[in-house]
Amino acid sequence: MVYYVAVDIGGTHMRVALFAADGQKPLRRERVPTLGPQPPEVRLVALLRRIWPSDGMVQGIGVAAPGPLDPYRGVILATPNIPAWRNFPLADHLRAAFGVPVVVDNDANLAAWGEWRYGAGRGCRHMLYVTVSTGIGAGVIVDGRLLHGARGLAGELGHVAVVADGPRCGCGQRGHLEALASGTAIARRARAALAAGAVSTLADLSALPTSADVARAAQAGDGLAREIMTTAAGHLGRALAGFLHIFNPERVVLGGGVVQAGEVFWRPLEDALRQAVMHPAYLDGVLLTRAALGDDAGLLGALALVRAK
Amino acid sequence: MVYYVAVDIGGTHMRVALFAADGQKPLRRERVPTLGPQPPEVRLVALLRRIWPSDGMVQGIGVAAPGPLDPYRGVILATPNIPAWRNFPLADHLRAAFGVPVVVDNDANLAAWGEWRYGAGRGCRHMLYVTVSTGIGAGVIVDGRLLHGARGLAGELGHVAVVADGPRCGCGQRGHLEALASGTAIARRARAALAAGAVSTLADLSALPTSADVARAAQAGDGLAREIMTTAAGHLGRALAGFLHIFNPERVVLGGGVVQAGEVFWRPLEDALRQAVMHPAYLDGVLLTRAALGDDAGLLGALALVRAK
Repeated sequence: MVYYVAVDIGGTHMRVALFAADGQKPLRRERVPTLGPQPPEVRLVALLRRIWPSDGMVQGIGVAAPGPLDPYRGVILATPNIPAWRNFPLADHLRAAFGVPVVVDNDANLAAWGEWRYGAGRGCRHMLYVTVSTGIGAGVIVDGRLLHGARGLAGELGHVAVVADGPRCGCGQRGHLEALASGTAIARRARAALAAGAVSTLADLSALPTSADVARAAQAGDGLAREIMTTAAGHLGRALAGFLHIFNPERVVLGGGVVQAGEVFWRPLEDALRQAVMHPAYLDGVLLTRAALGDDAGLLGALALVRAK
Repeated sequence: MVYYVAVDIGGTHMRVALFAADGQKPLRRERVPTLGPQPPEVRLVALLRRIWPSDGMVQGIGVAAPGPLDPYRGVILATPNIPAWRNFPLADHLRAAFGVPVVVDNDANLAAWGEWRYGAGRGCRHMLYVTVSTGIGAGVIVDGRLLHGARGLAGELGHVAVVADGPRCGCGQRGHLEALASGTAIARRARAALAAGAVSTLADLSALPTSADVARAAQAGDGLAREIMTTAAGHLGRALAGFLHIFNPERVVLGGGVVQAGEVFWRPLEDALRQAVMHPAYLDGVLLTRAALGDDAGLLGALALVRAK
């Protein structure tokens, strides 16, 4: 039998799955925490051995990893959650361990690719994928191809300044979309408002509010929470208008926990987007939709990547 | 003999040129003001007849026109300087008049394409072209192909918000890069400062200052003029950092009158760009350079487009 193996290296867990030559349902899957007593690359090899088939040929391994990384060489340049991996040749390491072809790409790029091949992006040629959770990740499909750029670092739509001298971003710069519309930004605004004495049901929680708490409070009608969700969604909507002017896609796929807040996020998002496009032609026929693959988007993108090799 | 015809429709002039099967020097060229007593499409046909060869075959006409337009159908959707052209089928009109294939694309896209084929972009695969004059036009080359998007409206890097609720842009939106770093924005800031009583050599001019006046005054050491150029260049530099995160190009080509101001523009531009990238890898090997084709970039892009048909 012929197999493919897909890997998704997240901030908290490393996940691996074994797939048949075709089909998107894994035959086996396993996961472990990303950080532990041994180096992450040792833990990853051990994890892969647990799903490795004894009865056939693995054609290759596809890996979704946090960036910045070099997908052409399969090298992790730096990744905030795995300090040991600086200029780490992940593809070479796995190739040496298993003797099969290995392809590595940015997790958000591969989530975009997964959604495009198997999820909410099927059937279109020009797609933006933006995932809004702790940070804001993104990937872009241009005429049926993943946008990589000269060194594979393209597609970082979360790291574009939308407010001059705005709040500090996870990357160290200021005013990036990620610093204004991510779950982290939503939670930070709520905590700052409570610290400043704002009246809100969020003050009744037993812990500091998370972005999920803010979403729930907004759904229940809390004024502060609604205002915070509206502000974050407005930033995302105005940024999306700029991305429509840049890419003129036919589909925009939004993933991540924050966009699951429903109306309290989507309505101000769509209002801001509609008001900020410079010509109605940019919205003509554009489908703005929820991602379909959930947490498996990166894994399935890694699968699509290694199958295409 | 075999010929190609290229057309560049600008805000003030329509220009046409006749080219041989290869070579970038026009055999004949003509121009007329864009607006006049007759409709622009009638004037354009008459202009083309003046350069049309009697001794051979024209293989096709390539047209650079102001957008927004539909390059797939050759239809001008709307263009501020030619109010009569609303949903105007320019390609069909010229095809009917001359009986040859006609291709139409956005002037900034074609200037990018011209620079990539024949100018400052030769030999690279991933390039941004930004032209800073009255407005800010742009075009993007992704892996050797012009970025068009689903309906050919992509590449509008000048119409991305860089300051929330910033000054009004020519497109009607607020805070776009064009509203902060174009020649129009530079002149507007200088005029506003003078009206508010700022001390500057610009106050000694016999007319309201243009952006070229501001550039000259900055070169001569005028404090207000230097501050205005620094601010505009800073906006462009920070926006370029975002575009590097989005596209990860290997070359950035800057055209238009404003970037000819020299050090007073380029030094703050490069400083802002360097400070605003989120990882040095985005600048690694990136060449930031002046456009090479001047006013002929659009015409030569139209030539490259029709030759490739």
